Amino acid sequence: MVELSLLKGTNDHLPNEQVVREKIVNRIKQVFHLYGYQPLTTPILEMWGVLASKYAGGSEILKETYQLKDQGNRTLGLRYDLSVPLARLVGMNPNLGRPFKRYEIGPCFRDGPIKKGRYREFIQCDADIIGVTSMLADAECLAVAHHIFTKLELEVYLEVNNRKLLSGILIAAGVPQDLLKTTILSIDKLKKIGMTGVRDELETKGVTTDLTESVFSFFSYEGSYLEILDQLEPRVENEIGKEGIEELRQLYLFLQLFGIADDVILLYSLARGLEIYTGTVFEAFLKEPGVIDSSLCGGGRYDEIIGKFLDSKEVYPAVGISFGLDTIYDAVAVHWKRKTSTTQVFLIPIKTLNTTVELATQLRQNNICTEVDLLERSLSKNLEFANRQQIPYVVILGKRDIAENLCTLRNMRDGTEQKVPLKQIVEKLSQLFTNGNQKS
Amino acid sequence: MVELSLLKGTNDHLPNEQVVREKIVNRIKQVFHLYGYQPLTTPILEMWGVLASKYAGGSEILKETYQLKDQGNRTLGLRYDLSVPLARLVGMNPNLGRPFKRYEIGPCFRDGPIKKGRYREFIQCDADIIGVTSMLADAECLAVAHHIFTKLELEVYLEVNNRKLLSGILIAAGVPQDLLKTTILSIDKLKKIGMTGVRDELETKGVTTDLTESVFSFFSYEGSYLEILDQLEPRVENEIGKEGIEELRQLYLFLQLFGIADDVILLYSLARGLEIYTGTVFEAFLKEPGVIDSSLCGGGRYDEIIGKFLDSKEVYPAVGISFGLDTIYDAVAVHWKRKTSTTQVFLIPIKTLNTTVELATQLRQNNICTEVDLLERSLSKNLEFANRQQIPYVVILGKRDIAENLCTLRNMRDGTEQKVPLKQIVEKLSQLFTNGNQKS
Repeated sequence: MVELSLLKGTNDHLPNEQVVREKIVNRIKQVFHLYGYQPLTTPILEMWGVLASKYAGGSEILKETYQLKDQGNRTLGLRYDLSVPLARLVGMNPNLGRPFKRYEIGPCFRDGPIKKGRYREFIQCDADIIGVTSMLADAECLAVAHHIFTKLELEVYLEVNNRKLLSGILIAAGVPQDLLKTTILSIDKLKKIGMTGVRDELETKGVTTDLTESVFSFFSYEGSYLEILDQLEPRVENEIGKEGIEELRQLYLFLQLFGIADDVILLYSLARGLEIYTGTVFEAFLKEPGVIDSSLCGGGRYDEIIGKFLDSKEVYPAVGISFGLDTIYDAVAVHWKRKTSTTQVFLIPIKTLNTTVELATQLRQNNICTEVDLLERSLSKNLEFANRQQIPYVVILGKRDIAENLCTLRNMRDGTEQKVPLKQIVEKLSQLFTNGNQKS
Repeated sequence: MVELSLLKGTNDHLPNEQVVREKIVNRIKQVFHLYGYQPLTTPILEMWGVLASKYAGGSEILKETYQLKDQGNRTLGLRYDLSVPLARLVGMNPNLGRPFKRYEIGPCFRDGPIKKGRYREFIQCDADIIGVTSMLADAECLAVAHHIFTKLELEVYLEVNNRKLLSGILIAAGVPQDLLKTTILSIDKLKKIGMTGVRDELETKGVTTDLTESVFSFFSYEGSYLEILDQLEPRVENEIGKEGIEELRQLYLFLQLFGIADDVILLYSLARGLEIYTGTVFEAFLKEPGVIDSSLCGGGRYDEIIGKFLDSKEVYPAVGISFGLDTIYDAVAVHWKRKTSTTQVFLIPIKTLNTTVELATQLRQNNICTEVDLLERSLSKNLEFANRQQIPYVVILGKRDIAENLCTLRNMRDGTEQKVPLKQIVEKLSQLFTNGNQKS
């Protein structure tokens, strides 16, 4: 006998969960469309060479990438993100217009450690703009994120930084070139492990105490987004740091234009790893603490990676944003009340199958989601079923009622019943549902 | 440098194509909901043991199944259909109510030969009913198919048969038990290769000419669904054949109830392979010949497979329907005119970025999909871009116009322009789009 099991780190999503997941995805798509992003899909199976390219996801990710062979002995891999396929697609389609604004929603795979919100097979929702250097594009990505969370009824704040500023600060603090990368990785953890944690970590990396203190002297500024920039500006006089500050100022103007500046915080230790980002970086978190502490989305500007990946002299300025469906589901599931079925009406024939199926056809033609009892069960069993499925209305079609051109409409939420002329039931239900009883 | 290529048999779907694919999927989902099917997803990665189970897809499919190992040295496979995961899920969730009506839409994989409409990675759209023996369920599946094609503006006819009738006919024709399966497989090709082709094939299989002629004597009946049954009935006196005829009669009554009997043809040679089906089988084809000759969907009743798969004494009557997105795309792409962008308005600021972004925000709040020029291009370049993207309207915000609280609305289809007070432009565009200019 076959052993029934799921691979650890993969999940079935049963209807009560999947209805919510689809609702989330639909709202994300709606917002992507509102900002002019166009849908696109790439395959899950990629040639291994593409995934393993030096400028793709990097060697750490590659260790967690599923590899397989096809019958032609080609080495393939399951994509670990949607960015590498995007870079490949851009390279293979040189005639795409600029800006190229696309979104993709689909499964990605990593054979890595599993924890809450981190799975082996997971749905990513990415939107990217290729071809724009202006901070207007970065601001738009943040506006998209903000809009999506508003649609999802989640209150979030956005942490923003610029990688050029971060490098500039470390250079100004005297960190030598060869320690720059490793210091960035430690500073990135400031929010999570605090100054003590970072100090200990830098010590093990051979950064002197004096140097660490010099670095920390920059990370003690507090205040609003602009106040922090004002305090940092006189101390960061190198080219790259100045550029970072200028971009952040520019970004702030646009965030004000989009009306979301109040929900943005400058977290100037934020790096989001080493490999990809060249400028703006950002993450979003729930305002309400203790519900979901990890970020609900993240992204930033990566002006160099596509060009390098394609080994091209052409410049591909790019900025993007990425949502993990599982984390968002966890955040939403706390707030949204248990979802009812997508089915709106359950029809129970009592020896009146013909009339019942005809009514079902009419209801469906009026866009009402209708299920008919297929099992000739008793009335009480049918009501129990409809209740368990959380279908909000039931119509009972008894033989005697039908003879008098009537049927019984039952509101499953409060248990009230009323007789309704058969000719009026479609209109009656249509009204109930257009009055906002059910929306998605 | 990385070689940019796609695995043969996999595809990118660029926006102009993906917009149509999403539209198809949305309509399919709408209809599934209208009939009370609930969404569900299962992983793409399954344990190899599940996919390779004796009662899963069978050894031919297994040869085409992608196999891989994870870091824990577990053997995994990429699912080749959505039916095996469904059977597994049903086994792992014994408390699902009956009937269990679910749909799933997602990628499946086969490492087999590629041809038009047959790829290595493809999207299946399946709906199934588990727990109902009544032909009402089979009729509902056909009604779902018919409804979906109506929504897709495709005129189809449905070919229907019953596997019990087919077996009954062959038994009545004197085909011995050990030749039954192989004869079914040949007869299944009657529509495609005709009597001559089948005769030749049966000859190579060792079926005598007399026996073949005896079989053919049953397949010469013509006429309507019921006329064919009337002609067959006196000649098919074995139990299984009688059951098949009775089920087909029952089904026809329900098809009439659903109002789709006129589009259903009894093709009593139809088998749809050997492995799965136990009763009703069906396929849908375009009425218009020569466009897409392969079936647009298929399905049937498989009462035994889940129970066997689960090695269970419990009975799992089941009937389902399956659509391949790629074939439907090919059929639809012929009929639907080229899709415009999902973006409805393109805003062109001419040194008026602040006002333009504010207007974009207002438009998006009114659910109008709006893109803003991010590149500070010239007016003519922007118009060229909007035209290429097939965005139907452009709003030009010039500095002088804005000073007079005006803007220019341009209809990209006919090139007409009008000045509109800035305060009225949101309402004006809202009206244009609610008047049916854009729907999905």
